[in-house]
Amino acid sequence: MKKFNTAPISGMQELLPALQAEFNRLKSAIFEVFLAHGFQNIETPTIDRTEILFAKAGGDTEKQIYRVVKTDECTDTADQALRFDHTVPLARYVVEHMSDLVFPFKVTQVGRNFRGERAQKGRFREFYQCDVDVIGWNTLSIAYDAEIIATLAEALSKLPLPNSFVVRISNRKLLVGLLENLNLEEKSKDIFNVIDHAEKVSPEETRSALQELQIGTANVDKLINFISINGKRNEVIDKLKSLRFSGEAFNQGINELNQVMQLLEDGYPTIKIVADTKIVRGLDYYTGTVFETNVIDYEWIGSICSGGRYENLAAHYTKQSLPGVGGSIGLTRLFYILQECNVALLEDVKPIDICVIPVSLSEYADSLIVANRLRQEGKLVDVVMTDKKLGDKMRYASRLANYAIIFGEKEAKEHSYRLRNLSTGEETVEKW
Amino acid sequence: MKKFNTAPISGMQELLPALQAEFNRLKSAIFEVFLAHGFQNIETPTIDRTEILFAKAGGDTEKQIYRVVKTDECTDTADQALRFDHTVPLARYVVEHMSDLVFPFKVTQVGRNFRGERAQKGRFREFYQCDVDVIGWNTLSIAYDAEIIATLAEALSKLPLPNSFVVRISNRKLLVGLLENLNLEEKSKDIFNVIDHAEKVSPEETRSALQELQIGTANVDKLINFISINGKRNEVIDKLKSLRFSGEAFNQGINELNQVMQLLEDGYPTIKIVADTKIVRGLDYYTGTVFETNVIDYEWIGSICSGGRYENLAAHYTKQSLPGVGGSIGLTRLFYILQECNVALLEDVKPIDICVIPVSLSEYADSLIVANRLRQEGKLVDVVMTDKKLGDKMRYASRLANYAIIFGEKEAKEHSYRLRNLSTGEETVEKW
Repeated sequence: MKKFNTAPISGMQELLPALQAEFNRLKSAIFEVFLAHGFQNIETPTIDRTEILFAKAGGDTEKQIYRVVKTDECTDTADQALRFDHTVPLARYVVEHMSDLVFPFKVTQVGRNFRGERAQKGRFREFYQCDVDVIGWNTLSIAYDAEIIATLAEALSKLPLPNSFVVRISNRKLLVGLLENLNLEEKSKDIFNVIDHAEKVSPEETRSALQELQIGTANVDKLINFISINGKRNEVIDKLKSLRFSGEAFNQGINELNQVMQLLEDGYPTIKIVADTKIVRGLDYYTGTVFETNVIDYEWIGSICSGGRYENLAAHYTKQSLPGVGGSIGLTRLFYILQECNVALLEDVKPIDICVIPVSLSEYADSLIVANRLRQEGKLVDVVMTDKKLGDKMRYASRLANYAIIFGEKEAKEHSYRLRNLSTGEETVEKW
Repeated sequence: MKKFNTAPISGMQELLPALQAEFNRLKSAIFEVFLAHGFQNIETPTIDRTEILFAKAGGDTEKQIYRVVKTDECTDTADQALRFDHTVPLARYVVEHMSDLVFPFKVTQVGRNFRGERAQKGRFREFYQCDVDVIGWNTLSIAYDAEIIATLAEALSKLPLPNSFVVRISNRKLLVGLLENLNLEEKSKDIFNVIDHAEKVSPEETRSALQELQIGTANVDKLINFISINGKRNEVIDKLKSLRFSGEAFNQGINELNQVMQLLEDGYPTIKIVADTKIVRGLDYYTGTVFETNVIDYEWIGSICSGGRYENLAAHYTKQSLPGVGGSIGLTRLFYILQECNVALLEDVKPIDICVIPVSLSEYADSLIVANRLRQEGKLVDVVMTDKKLGDKMRYASRLANYAIIFGEKEAKEHSYRLRNLSTGEETVEKW
C-alpha cells in the first residue's frame, strides 16, 4: 500500500501509543520528584547560536552537532544549531537572566537533545534527558553535591528497574592530586582518558595503555593501585589516607568525597552508595564530585544516571563565578533498554477508562452528556461515533478501554446504563 | 560582566522559572482534557526526512522549513529538516504504523514545532502546538468533527482567558459548491485566497480584490453576499438554503454544517458556537468542516484555536483512504499574548511549598529527613544548604517559598519544629 518510505529517520525513537503512555508516565514520575525537591523548571530553545554551543563542545560532540539552515538561505552560514545537552544552554540561560534568578538556583530541564551519532542499536540521535542542576553565586556548598545525587536517586527509585541500583561516587581532585604527587600533570589528559575507559576493557589492557604513555612502571603500579580502591566510605577513605599523598588537591578530594557520602548516609539512608575511584567522567568540565549509577546485576547496561561538580561552566560567557553541580537521567536510552531487552516488564495500560457506545445517532447527544459527567469525575472517556455495527464498536472498545457502556434508547429514556468490565464481563447498573 | 551575547535567538521563547511554571500548568491542563476525551498521545521525531515534510508543505511554509545538517557533513545534501507542524508527521506515522493502530485513531500531540519566519514581536520560530486529530479507516463519521471542536473548546475553557470565546464554524464544501454553481472553479484558488484574507482587510478591499479577478460584478455580489452570512445555526442554514444553489457539494456543505453544530448544541450546550461562512482556512488540505476560535471582545488577537476536516492527508504516502479531522491550540503565541499584552493576569505562584533551613551543618541530616517526610505528603520542599548567615537564608526562602522551617539544635533534640507562613508570619508547631 505504501508509496513512500514512511519509517522515521534511523536513530529516532517513535513509540506506539501504549508505550508512549508508559514513557510519559516514567517521565512525569521523574519530573515530579525533581519538583518535590525544590527544583524549578526551565526550557531553553531547541535551536541556539552555534558559537554558544561550540564554546564548550569540542571533539566528537562538535562533529555530532546538527546545524540548522533555513531552506531559502545559503547553507554555508549555518550559525544556528540544535542543542546537544542541557548544560550548555543552561550556562547561557543563567548568564542571560542572572539578575532575575535567586541563587543558589536549583533548576530542572526535561526535554529532547540531539546528536548526529553513528546509527547503532540503542543509540539515539534525538533523546530525552532529565537534568537537575544547582548553580551558586561565587560559592556553592558541597552539600548540594549530595542533594543532586539524592534527588536523582529518588527519581530512579520510581522507575521499573529490575533490581535496585547503586550510585558510585568519586572526586576528580583525587586523581588530579595524585598526578601532582607523581609529577605527571603534563600527561594528565591521556591518563584521565585511559582511566575513563578502564571499565570497558580488561585490567591488562588498562595496564598496557598506561605503559604506552611512558610514565614508568612504578607510576603505572601506583595508578592501577589507586583505581582498584572502591567500596564503603570508611574503608575507602582509610585506604586513600594510607596512600600518604601530600598536596591540597588530593586531601580536598578525600574530604569532599567523605562529606558527600556522609551526608547521603545520614540524610538518605535507603540510597545504596559506594566510593569508586575509577569514576572520572570523560568530559573535562567536571572539577570535583563525579558519579555514575548502575543497576545491580545489570552492569552491562552501563551508567543510567551520572553527573558531577563543575566550577567554571559559564566562564566562557561571564567573569562572574558560577559554580555548579548537576546530573542527568538519559531516559530515551534507558526506556529502550528496559523495553527492548526485556529488562523490565513495562505496564501495558489501556489508554481509555470507559468507552461509551451510542447505539444510534439519536443517542449521540445523551452519550456525550454522560461522557462529560464521567470526565468530571476524572475518568478518561471515549464516545464511539463510527457508523459501524455494534460488534465492530465493541471490538474497538475491547482493544482500547477497561469498561464499556452501551447506550441505547432504553438508557436514554430510563436515565440509567450498564457499566461493563471488559476483562471480567461483570456489569453494574448506574444512574445518570 | 558578560563576555558573550547570551540572548536566545530572536523568535525563541525563553521564560523565567515562575512563568515557565505557569506555562507548564496551562499545557498540562490542555493535555489532561485531551486524554479525558479518549485521545492517545504520540510523539513524532523533531527531525524528519525533507521529502516527507516537503510532500505537503509548499509555498511560504517550504521557505520557512529549517533543514538540519551534521557539522561534519556537506551542507548541500540537507535531506533532513525540522517539523513545521504536527499534521505532516502524523500522516507519516499513521501510514508507517497502520497495522498496529486501532481506528478511528484518536490522537494527541503536544510539542514544539519550527518555522524560520521573519522575526516579529509575538511571532515565534519555535512554538508549542497542542493538537488533537481523529483518523478514520476508509470513512470517518461527521460526528468526530463535532468531537474535535468540543475537545478543543473544553481545553480552552481551562485557560485564563479574559472573556469567554466563540467557535466560528463553516464548511469548505459551501464555497466549493457555490463556485461550481457560478462556473468559477478555475478561479477557485484565487477566490479562496481573497476570502481567507477578508477578515484582515476592509469590506471595500475584499470587493475590489474580487473585482480584480474579473469574474463579473454579479458574481462578486453573490460572493460578498455569501460571506456576509453568519450567526446562529438555524438562521444560517435557512439563509444558505434560500440561496437555492444546486449541486451535491453545496448541499452536503449545508448538511454537514448543520449536523456538526446540532451535535455541539445538544451534547455540549455550554460551548458558544456560531456559523460563519467567511472561515475557509488557507491551507488547501482542508476539505469539509473548518473552524476558528476568537476571544470575545479581543478579536484583534486572531484565532486562538483552529482546524478542520481533511479527507486525503496521507494520499502522498499510501493508497489507503485515511480521512481525518483535527485542530490545534498554538500555545506559545497565546501565552505570549496573555502575558505580554496584559490580556490575562497569569498566576505568580511560588515554586516551593516549604523551605527547610538547617542552622548549621550538624542539622543537615535531620533536615533532610524532615524534608523527605514532607515530600511524601506531596509537598515541594527545598533544604537550604548555603554557608550563609541566617538572614540570607531567610531572604532566599521568602523569594521562593510559602512556608519556612528554621531547623536548629533545639528542633533536632525535641523532635518538633515551627512552620512559619512567610506571607502572614503565623507559626504552628509540628512534631516530626
